Amino acid sequence: MKTQVVIIGAGPAGLLLGHLLRAEDIDCIIVERASAEYVLGRIRAGVLEQTTTDLLHRLDIDARLNSEGLLEEGFCLADGERLIRIDTYSLTGKHVTVYGQTEVTRDLMDAAPERGLDIIYEANDVDLHDIDGNAPYVTYRKDGCEHRIDARFIAGCDGYHGPSRQAIPKSVAQSYEREYPFGWLGILADVPPCHDELIYANHERGFALASMRSKTRSRYYIDVPVTENVEDWNDDRLWDELAVRLGPQAAANMTRGAAIEKSIAPLRSFVFEPMRHGSLFLAGDAAHIVPPTGAKGLNLAASDVHYLSEALAGFFNHIDNDGIAAYSQKALARVWKSERFSWSLTKLMHRFPEDGPFERRMQMAELDYISGSEAAQKTIAENYVGLPL
Amino acid sequence: MKTQVVIIGAGPAGLLLGHLLRAEDIDCIIVERASAEYVLGRIRAGVLEQTTTDLLHRLDIDARLNSEGLLEEGFCLADGERLIRIDTYSLTGKHVTVYGQTEVTRDLMDAAPERGLDIIYEANDVDLHDIDGNAPYVTYRKDGCEHRIDARFIAGCDGYHGPSRQAIPKSVAQSYEREYPFGWLGILADVPPCHDELIYANHERGFALASMRSKTRSRYYIDVPVTENVEDWNDDRLWDELAVRLGPQAAANMTRGAAIEKSIAPLRSFVFEPMRHGSLFLAGDAAHIVPPTGAKGLNLAASDVHYLSEALAGFFNHIDNDGIAAYSQKALARVWKSERFSWSLTKLMHRFPEDGPFERRMQMAELDYISGSEAAQKTIAENYVGLPL
Repeated sequence: MKTQVVIIGAGPAGLLLGHLLRAEDIDCIIVERASAEYVLGRIRAGVLEQTTTDLLHRLDIDARLNSEGLLEEGFCLADGERLIRIDTYSLTGKHVTVYGQTEVTRDLMDAAPERGLDIIYEANDVDLHDIDGNAPYVTYRKDGCEHRIDARFIAGCDGYHGPSRQAIPKSVAQSYEREYPFGWLGILADVPPCHDELIYANHERGFALASMRSKTRSRYYIDVPVTENVEDWNDDRLWDELAVRLGPQAAANMTRGAAIEKSIAPLRSFVFEPMRHGSLFLAGDAAHIVPPTGAKGLNLAASDVHYLSEALAGFFNHIDNDGIAAYSQKALARVWKSERFSWSLTKLMHRFPEDGPFERRMQMAELDYISGSEAAQKTIAENYVGLPL
Repeated sequence: MKTQVVIIGAGPAGLLLGHLLRAEDIDCIIVERASAEYVLGRIRAGVLEQTTTDLLHRLDIDARLNSEGLLEEGFCLADGERLIRIDTYSLTGKHVTVYGQTEVTRDLMDAAPERGLDIIYEANDVDLHDIDGNAPYVTYRKDGCEHRIDARFIAGCDGYHGPSRQAIPKSVAQSYEREYPFGWLGILADVPPCHDELIYANHERGFALASMRSKTRSRYYIDVPVTENVEDWNDDRLWDELAVRLGPQAAANMTRGAAIEKSIAPLRSFVFEPMRHGSLFLAGDAAHIVPPTGAKGLNLAASDVHYLSEALAGFFNHIDNDGIAAYSQKALARVWKSERFSWSLTKLMHRFPEDGPFERRMQMAELDYISGSEAAQKTIAENYVGLPL
């Protein structure tokens, strides 16, 4: 097989890139290790920047997004006593949209056939070859046979554990990493949200987040030590803890329900540089991970593939090759700013074992300052809705 | 002797409070351990918030401030490559003024006799008595004799090492502290400043600050490990290091000269709560210390004594006693915000031994974000010029 761009990974990054390339009449094939059902079964983020929804509107893959997505005009920070509202819409003129990553993925998958976007699922042992030259290729096994796809470029959208990043020689790369001493214990339940906007809480007992996927499905989190076992948290214990950490106002409106899903996710900051090597580009989690505080992960994947699709369109449409050369630097400039926002919001809203009473008071002083400063609220808002592309 | 308020300490906090009380016709006496010459010999900060200069204007102790103070409309952050200007005046409508703390102290001392403000210098073994009741008194030794001043209130403006804070029982108080793993090595020289605005630099090799006291007197700093000896830094070595850390643009305009003063100051964050116990009030460094980054120390002392003078005026002029009860909480709300700003600017601009490459990139990403975001510039500017009283 031969195509212009092989995309490795059919998560939202790969799918969105595939559609953006097809919209420019660039041929591409997506190769995915798992099945479509498995990909859709992953429970992930659910808050989309306007940058991200703009891409879906432009692609005209927005029917369900328009009817089911919840436009949010703000969110809240809580300090154990009060709710501090960040009115993102009045501060920035932009919305975020609550719409599950799973739903985005489903919409992009559903629209693939009509747009001539081929997706090969259950491709095992995906391997990258000759990425240093102009004729790279990808091999994989499926149904007992060995397959090969030749291309001009490969886009690695295969996440943190995929083979793409591994294909870049360590000698030309550098990675930056920070692990956090806690994870997020999350519960998904078919109950109405306790509040119509997200609440990020920094309580004496720890972090909590009240989020939602729709008006009837809620997503809540608390932070727990990384050593914690999810089995030790039955639903009642988790709801009790959420009620305390979110504070009386949110707790009063919280509807409890059986967990559809419950799991502990580690938090990590990670950046890999460069995001291009020869004919291979990295996008999304393949190149960088943010802690989930602030919901930047999916949105950063979207801005990566936006930059990448523009660069590839410039190349294949014979406009210019500069975009190819500039991609890594351009994408990384935004990546680092989102990494910073995710890291700083994580630092503001969580208790760290190494922090003492002074650092605790610094968190409270910052929340107090934010509550009274429009400029401080605007810095948070403009990062939350997404910095300009 | 008997008065309404005994003020311990003739630094800027005590002197300013004395003048503010005299302006309300409240009797007070300042008791100072050292001589006037010794107090004036201390080299300290030199950047005044408008909040602080407003007090001096109101007191009409501003002749030299008006003629010699340098109105600054902005300052710069440097990241090793570029200067990022924070245009504080256009962002907030407020100036800061470069005018040495020594000069403020001298002006306040000079104006004392005409305003009926008594200052007793070289008062040894100052001790506080009966602060729990309504008739506290202060004792001290001078010229071989024991003296006693009775008062309704005592104001402890005697700095971090003074006796006032020690007089408050530990059982009713709490202190918060953070030490930093570096100190500031400063040089004062009679040379013109390299730039007409302050430059705070975060260079690969460490922090540097280009500041000034006047158009002909410069003050520079670099950070060094706390274990460093000032003797190991001859003038040439220090100028060389400054030139590197401040970057080529500033270095090109830097005039070198012999040190008038050279010393290493430790950095500390410290807050003592509450700032009132019975008939004793604390103000300035007696209650809190900030690292010098952002120049908040003197200005925080000024806002403390502003609140305190209002509270005491309310009491003595029989308007209300609420100010007395509210002083600690009111002052501390602003103190914690200034502590936060000083701490966060210190974190942004210094290298910490415990930080790795990821944290370094977070600093660079924050500076890059600040350079492109008016909202981020405004948050820094509004803190730099001083949050509203």
